[in-house]
Amino acid sequence: MNSESALREKLATVTRIFAMQGMIGLFGHVSAFDSVTRRVFMSPGMAGDKATTRPADLLVLDLQGKLLDGDGQVPVEWPIHTAIHGARSDALAVAHLHSPYATLFAIAKREFRPVTLQGALFLDGVPVYSEPQLVKTTSEAQRLSGLIGGRRAALLRGHGIVVLGKDIEEMLFASLILEDDTRKAMQAATLGKLGFISPEECRAFATEADWERRAHRAWNYFTRLEARWDRQPATGAGSLA
Amino acid sequence: MNSESALREKLATVTRIFAMQGMIGLFGHVSAFDSVTRRVFMSPGMAGDKATTRPADLLVLDLQGKLLDGDGQVPVEWPIHTAIHGARSDALAVAHLHSPYATLFAIAKREFRPVTLQGALFLDGVPVYSEPQLVKTTSEAQRLSGLIGGRRAALLRGHGIVVLGKDIEEMLFASLILEDDTRKAMQAATLGKLGFISPEECRAFATEADWERRAHRAWNYFTRLEARWDRQPATGAGSLA
Amino acid sequence: MNSESALREKLATVTRIFAMQGMIGLFGHVSAFDSVTRRVFMSPGMAGDKATTRPADLLVLDLQGKLLDGDGQVPVEWPIHTAIHGARSDALAVAHLHSPYATLFAIAKREFRPVTLQGALFLDGVPVYSEPQLVKTTSEAQRLSGLIGGRRAALLRGHGIVVLGKDIEEMLFASLILEDDTRKAMQAATLGKLGFISPEECRAFATEADWERRAHRAWNYFTRLEARWDRQPATGAGSLA
Amino acid sequence: MNSESALREKLATVTRIFAMQGMIGLFGHVSAFDSVTRRVFMSPGMAGDKATTRPADLLVLDLQGKLLDGDGQVPVEWPIHTAIHGARSDALAVAHLHSPYATLFAIAKREFRPVTLQGALFLDGVPVYSEPQLVKTTSEAQRLSGLIGGRRAALLRGHGIVVLGKDIEEMLFASLILEDDTRKAMQAATLGKLGFISPEECRAFATEADWERRAHRAWNYFTRLEARWDRQPATGAGSLA
Repeated sequence: MNSESALREKLATVTRIFAMQGMIGLFGHVSAFDSVTRRVFMSPGMAGDKATTRPADLLVLDLQGKLLDGDGQVPVEWPIHTAIHGARSDALAVAHLHSPYATLFAIAKREFRPVTLQGALFLDGVPVYSEPQLVKTTSEAQRLSGLIGGRRAALLRGHGIVVLGKDIEEMLFASLILEDDTRKAMQAATLGKLGFISPEECRAFATEADWERRAHRAWNYFTRLEARWDRQPATGAGSLA
Repeated sequence: MNSESALREKLATVTRIFAMQGMIGLFGHVSAFDSVTRRVFMSPGMAGDKATTRPADLLVLDLQGKLLDGDGQVPVEWPIHTAIHGARSDALAVAHLHSPYATLFAIAKREFRPVTLQGALFLDGVPVYSEPQLVKTTSEAQRLSGLIGGRRAALLRGHGIVVLGKDIEEMLFASLILEDDTRKAMQAATLGKLGFISPEECRAFATEADWERRAHRAWNYFTRLEARWDRQPATGAGSLA
Repeated sequence: MNSESALREKLATVTRIFAMQGMIGLFGHVSAFDSVTRRVFMSPGMAGDKATTRPADLLVLDLQGKLLDGDGQVPVEWPIHTAIHGARSDALAVAHLHSPYATLFAIAKREFRPVTLQGALFLDGVPVYSEPQLVKTTSEAQRLSGLIGGRRAALLRGHGIVVLGKDIEEMLFASLILEDDTRKAMQAATLGKLGFISPEECRAFATEADWERRAHRAWNYFTRLEARWDRQPATGAGSLA
Repeated sequence: MNSESALREKLATVTRIFAMQGMIGLFGHVSAFDSVTRRVFMSPGMAGDKATTRPADLLVLDLQGKLLDGDGQVPVEWPIHTAIHGARSDALAVAHLHSPYATLFAIAKREFRPVTLQGALFLDGVPVYSEPQLVKTTSEAQRLSGLIGGRRAALLRGHGIVVLGKDIEEMLFASLILEDDTRKAMQAATLGKLGFISPEECRAFATEADWERRAHRAWNYFTRLEARWDRQPATGAGSLA
């Protein structure tokens, strides 16, 4: 399998995993950047069925958003992907998701702070992009990319999230952790004050944690689950997410 | 396929989609109006199995509620549909649902205000019909219809919701958005104060949003999901909803 | 089908419906009373698989709890059933459930008050049995039965619920409504103060509502769903409930 | 079946049951101690698929953590198991889980107190291990074991739980009860103040309760459910748990 085939295979797989987890739904999309050919591979936009995405369904764009290959619908928010891939050589994978729990922190007036050890992955914080519009232009996407800076994610107010990784595995892992941490924070909040993992504790945990190993283990785990998934809609869960 | 066949096909499909999403349950019903023949097509009432509704199961009524065709159970709240179809030429599709999350705003003493960008669809607000009874007479239904005015939906106190659209696709889309927005509001409320999308921001977003395109994309997406749905009851979700 | 066969068939079916709905779990049990032969039919106790209960699995007891027929495990809380069947000629069906949402009102210090129109079924209130023990003796069960009086249900503190009906259909319907109303109350409570259905409004609604018709419609609906249920465990839902 | 075969069979089964219940996920692991041969049987660590674990997949370690048999991944937190098995002759089974609800009490600043009768199993309390790191060394695990003392469980801050039992059945039962009690506490908390089961009431209930009988009944019940489980991922539930 050459490098493009492998990248297409992985990107299609992660799209289906996000569908299985109820995190991508109708409007989400993911991308991976081939730094040699400077091409962006992207999952199709609205109405594309994420649960059955195959490598041949992916779109190929250049960094200016010109469609080079593929006949699916280009997501209207494609500039999110090209802006981040163009700005950061360590962000070879980018997800734009409407994941149900992380998005709550883009609604409630409450700063994200990690409540789980793995949440230490986000020790630099998760900024909120406050513009109440889709990110449809290059200049908007560049503002978003600038807001993210060297961090791993952003919350889009009243809308969803953007998560990036140095590869598809890390992007998946970070997205799952952000969803898990925010879900636990939301549920625990009904019990009273939360015990956060402090910045110092995050740093100490992150120093010890071998994120790459964890991300690859999670990849193996979820690809196996996805392989046996019966592709039933997650009834009642994440309707429009 | 002639126009009646097409309308029946769509109305049966949307009934099954609402069943899949856990939004219609035992007591909900949907309708579509044929403005040429002035006939109302309606899904059967109580005890009708929404998950398996077929075009031939639909009832046909005139605007006075006289049954013209079909042998299922006419919903006792049929006047909701005839009153709205009769009053508004831009409401060719009407849903009465007991959707689990939107109904919470018909219980809690808290006005609906959008927390998601797509919630801008409801920028004119969602009024509460406060009568603690089913809507079983024409005069009650006309009061409800008057309360809705030019808006897209109403909350029925302690009961459920009514959502309308210019066609079946828009009615489905609006119902999904209202459910999604209210679910997110409910969950985010455990985290503290909510950041609403202001009326001005709603207007700005709504101006840009191509609702018709979105509604048709969502239609394609959910019809595909429904086509592969295994029709298992959403165990534990939406029991009586 | 003679009357005993019919009763066994219905009682086995309602046991499976409660399993499907995640309301009976490991420890619940249901009963029906044959007023002619003065015998109590009861679903087996702990470790009995409620999702596959068949008519032949049912136990038959007399009102003193003597096992007349069947070789399953008699529930240790059998006196709940015999005490209520013995005391009230209008309670021919009794359920003891650990339904996840209704039980929350047996934990939180908050009186049950209906928030939905159908909750009017419980306009006489739902008393709390406060003894922190299982109901294993006749005298305890008689105290519980006395507490219920002429009402339809009781909450067992830190434990579960008891619901009764004049027949199996009404007992199912009342159990579903109590679960639905309490779930909505719990979820809406995160949004602020609740708007209850007042006693007067309950009375007005209950006067109009044809509970028997509703209960039989619900019976038809849920038996159809149960017939196509694939008997998968409700993963993650209602573990021990 | 000799004793090792039986132990392996049970440990593999309980691993799959925890997967079915959405309580073990990617990072959990369980163990059982053979007190005759002083060997620890353990489910594989990260990336091992808990839903399909078979007896031959299990690892065998000595109390110093030396791998004696098996070629799966030894969990990095193996010392949790060896420390507890080594310290307590009444803890022949140990689970380390990231169960979604119990973990909330390792996040919120609120002491665990039972709200259900069965929660009386934890009448001695559930201490919180507050170190914000994985338990990867023998000395850390010994501190954790010392903190647990003679109790049945501990909460690991921002991380998960440890539950032990005198056999696999009791360890499963205790884990299910802790998850059920914490879930009900979390949900009921939205309704207001909770009514706890007091220490005296716990003691009275625990005296009467035949935990061994209950645990074995629960074992029979859940093994039957697991035997018919279709091994579908619990979509949207417990993503990383």
